[in-house]
Amino acid sequence: MKHFDLSLYLVTDRSQSQGRPLEYIVKEAAEGGVSMVQLREKSCTSREFYRQALSLKACLKPYNIPLIINDRLDIALACDAEGLHIGQTDLPCDVARRILGKEKIIGLSVESIQDALDANTLEIDYIGISPVFSTPTKTDTATELGLTGIREISTLSRHPGVGIGGIHPGNARAVIQAGAEGISVVSAIMSAAVPRQAASQLRDIVYQSKKIK
Amino acid sequence: MKHFDLSLYLVTDRSQSQGRPLEYIVKEAAEGGVSMVQLREKSCTSREFYRQALSLKACLKPYNIPLIINDRLDIALACDAEGLHIGQTDLPCDVARRILGKEKIIGLSVESIQDALDANTLEIDYIGISPVFSTPTKTDTATELGLTGIREISTLSRHPGVGIGGIHPGNARAVIQAGAEGISVVSAIMSAAVPRQAASQLRDIVYQSKKIK
Repeated sequence: MKHFDLSLYLVTDRSQSQGRPLEYIVKEAAEGGVSMVQLREKSCTSREFYRQALSLKACLKPYNIPLIINDRLDIALACDAEGLHIGQTDLPCDVARRILGKEKIIGLSVESIQDALDANTLEIDYIGISPVFSTPTKTDTATELGLTGIREISTLSRHPGVGIGGIHPGNARAVIQAGAEGISVVSAIMSAAVPRQAASQLRDIVYQSKKIK
Repeated sequence: MKHFDLSLYLVTDRSQSQGRPLEYIVKEAAEGGVSMVQLREKSCTSREFYRQALSLKACLKPYNIPLIINDRLDIALACDAEGLHIGQTDLPCDVARRILGKEKIIGLSVESIQDALDANTLEIDYIGISPVFSTPTKTDTATELGLTGIREISTLSRHPGVGIGGIHPGNARAVIQAGAEGISVVSAIMSAAVPRQAASQLRDIVYQSKKIK
């Protein structure tokens, strides 16, 4: 049985950390209450990615927070991360599952109703519903799905879903109320002046919204 | 026991194929006598890399030519390639060996005498001695090692070495005579008007030079 909590899922983006080391932001975010962390790197060498992954794994261990690696199955294996997050242009899910085994967490980004339907046939553990709102973080994603998209996908999906894209304290409650199990954020924590406080505020909103739901 | 022949080792570079599919060049090169092929991709998605790797593996199977994947251990695992080639900024060799197992071929690029000395302590199967001559293919590599470098490294290394960088029919013999087990080429085959002929010519030079050596 895999244990993970999608409530507040931080995805890293070094370019939004305002010069602060990822380790600092991740530790602060852990103190503030993030429940999962995804390391996403798109322009460094494999060696740097590996070292960064090892370092974040060590940061998260005392908190028992799972580290998920974006796209790179080899890095996930190399650092023995708790899981892998794949997009529609990454390795196919069945290939990733075969190599990673049943014990690891695999998440998949879905960008449409059709993606979510297709995901129902796959051995994955959660879906990232993306993008909920338009966002400057990712420029290569599909049209925003909005709260209607979250609602439709949460209803039809057999996997728990986490919303991602443009989520902040002002709209987090609505995303949970629309059916998501959690929210995933980049800039709302990465760029926050006090990442611990930002995480804590978001966590409180998610937990309160889940109670009401 | 791993069987591989470093004599003529093609490294792919889509940008040098002059619009021709990699499958075409690789089949032609196989017909012409290349003994190993390395798939190197630096700017495509993981899904594209995986599909390309599967496709080249199918091309090479009838010739019993090993497919080696550059850098990406996950792609090597996903397509069950015969091996992995890693550079000094890729995953550490010991990590790659642990994940790939003893049966797969692992090659390492060495760019200096010191790299070659360090490689003697590693569980790898061959070294790529790079760059022998200056080349427009890779812009991120160290100073050219020249024939003197090939000679020194071949003498001190416990691994067989393949020279790479600026090798063509005019200097291939000298590289083998300096101690390399083989030559690795990119543009000499990728950009050739008739890749099969280019491969065949290079193979003849290598085999003749080895006889004399």
